[in-house]
Amino acid sequence: MPDTTTALDLTRDAVALTEDLVNIESVSGDERRLADAVEAALRALSHLDVQRFGNTVVARTEQGRAERVVIAGHLDTVPVNDNLPARRDDTLLHGLGACDMKGGVAVALRVATMPETDRDITYLFYECEEVEASRNGLQHLSQSRPDLLQADFAILMEPSDAVVEAGCQGTLRVDVTVPGVRAHSARSWTGVNAIHGAAEVLARLNDYEPRRPVIDGLEYHEGLNAVFVSGGVAGNVLPDVCTVSVNHRFAPDRTVEQAHAHVREVFAGFDVELTDAAPAAMPGLSVPAAAAFIEAVGGTANPKFGWTDVARFSGLGIPAVNFGPGDPQLAHRRDEFVPMEDIRTVERQLRSWLGAAS
Amino acid sequence: MPDTTTALDLTRDAVALTEDLVNIESVSGDERRLADAVEAALRALSHLDVQRFGNTVVARTEQGRAERVVIAGHLDTVPVNDNLPARRDDTLLHGLGACDMKGGVAVALRVATMPETDRDITYLFYECEEVEASRNGLQHLSQSRPDLLQADFAILMEPSDAVVEAGCQGTLRVDVTVPGVRAHSARSWTGVNAIHGAAEVLARLNDYEPRRPVIDGLEYHEGLNAVFVSGGVAGNVLPDVCTVSVNHRFAPDRTVEQAHAHVREVFAGFDVELTDAAPAAMPGLSVPAAAAFIEAVGGTANPKFGWTDVARFSGLGIPAVNFGPGDPQLAHRRDEFVPMEDIRTVERQLRSWLGAAS
Repeated sequence: MPDTTTALDLTRDAVALTEDLVNIESVSGDERRLADAVEAALRALSHLDVQRFGNTVVARTEQGRAERVVIAGHLDTVPVNDNLPARRDDTLLHGLGACDMKGGVAVALRVATMPETDRDITYLFYECEEVEASRNGLQHLSQSRPDLLQADFAILMEPSDAVVEAGCQGTLRVDVTVPGVRAHSARSWTGVNAIHGAAEVLARLNDYEPRRPVIDGLEYHEGLNAVFVSGGVAGNVLPDVCTVSVNHRFAPDRTVEQAHAHVREVFAGFDVELTDAAPAAMPGLSVPAAAAFIEAVGGTANPKFGWTDVARFSGLGIPAVNFGPGDPQLAHRRDEFVPMEDIRTVERQLRSWLGAAS
Repeated sequence: MPDTTTALDLTRDAVALTEDLVNIESVSGDERRLADAVEAALRALSHLDVQRFGNTVVARTEQGRAERVVIAGHLDTVPVNDNLPARRDDTLLHGLGACDMKGGVAVALRVATMPETDRDITYLFYECEEVEASRNGLQHLSQSRPDLLQADFAILMEPSDAVVEAGCQGTLRVDVTVPGVRAHSARSWTGVNAIHGAAEVLARLNDYEPRRPVIDGLEYHEGLNAVFVSGGVAGNVLPDVCTVSVNHRFAPDRTVEQAHAHVREVFAGFDVELTDAAPAAMPGLSVPAAAAFIEAVGGTANPKFGWTDVARFSGLGIPAVNFGPGDPQLAHRRDEFVPMEDIRTVERQLRSWLGAAS
């Protein structure tokens, strides 16, 4: 049994539960306390079969239904930025992870208390979604226990303004390396300053015009951004290397290979090393399971700009959509928040679709 | 007594001694092993009064001469860069610190073995010259024991091609901060990328035209260089801050205050914070003690580009020059070396000026 010091009460309403989840700090790599609490709360529900893998928790109903649905959310957040603990005003819940994505996790936990549903459900609460793909808990599970992910349809409870978001953009990261020649900074004309050389890399980023392709009627929006820069040896030395780490977000009409080739072209003349990549997912709105769910929860769909694990399910041949409380544009912002009404709406719609009273 | 595991043999010739010094790694902050060895070797000489302060060693003759000379060198080096151990070819000794400034330290240690000299001598071997001024061993000594620095003239054995170098350029460091607004990199249009904003800072550095003023007949050469750059929060976040640390080297016709104002002007519009500064020193070639020494060792003088502790002695009212083996342009370069002949020449000239046989 895990050493759980924080108990979650799943009988509290979903807004209060979101608040409780926000107040359990769970920056990527440090999700253990939250995973312990989620595991303990789910193990108390006799209709669920609960398993633990690292800081990822899987809980399944086994009602013998004709259809199985995955309801999934990640437990981790981006780093703390003076935005804890949670704070409420009249209509909004503020705090790290309130939007991305503890509101969605709270709804999934609330739905998990339903002893009977029209469809069998696999609940997935996983670790390390906000960091490199190689650490992603769902990625690990898809390799070690793909049987546990099998389903007819998957709902990722990432923030989507309580409206279905279809497809998702791909993401890749490269390190662009600028060389130089070290020298004493008092005689700088004898060396080549690698940091000064990075001006050209940043200029190309500033000049970059991202594509906005329309796919299945949805307009995507690409991006190319430096996410890290580093260089320097000592306070009196011209550095011989400066590295700019760049994140490219690309629309679902491009493969990882095509997107990588594009980035190499943008930084032609520099050393470009691929460090991380995850494919995009086509919207797939014509898949019957997706169309049926969209119809049940309001009939509209938006494009998904951010990469989400929708792409991982697509890769396994499982139709998947994003559907969760909160504005996705607030994810990773220090001032992120979630409208309380979104949390309630998403819970009500999910319960209704799953066909059972609470 | 220090725990010394490495013994220095001061009866070896100065080139072999330089090689031994290079092979005792002594990156700034990690000089203890070398300071222990220097202290032990000097304590074995009965004509010297030896004192230890941190990793700074002071040794004085007390012959009752009319004039006292400081002969000084720093024990530390810039970081290791795959350039150890020492390596010789026909005429050159290669390796970290060979030029800056273990050749000069070896000559000073060799001269320290002279039991009798025309002038009393204070030998100073000190720590942390290659890092911020607040850690500099000579700076510490000038505050805690200024009596130990009192002298009629000071010779700093920094590399100067075995020719006297007069004056030195000042140095200051600033952090230039570029602000941004954090956002998820999948929706980059909702934020402001601080790293991209740093393009303007790097562009101003690339456009900068350094002054080359002539002072006392010597041409100085200023510089403005990024020495560190950092920014980044996570691999999928637009960072809200990027910091470029800039080192300005300025000629002796400007005070620290004037140089600081100049740098603020270059980076107008950005937040500029002064983190470190050390004043320049005027050449002072008209001071009698300096003129006499220059005459004794060849009659010519060059301008000093790098900041050296000459400025600290100037600040105490003690005339001071640089005079040491090695090309100052090789300092801090991975491939630094010192011509063996320089080491021998400087030792011979110093011994001759001090008026005693070895």
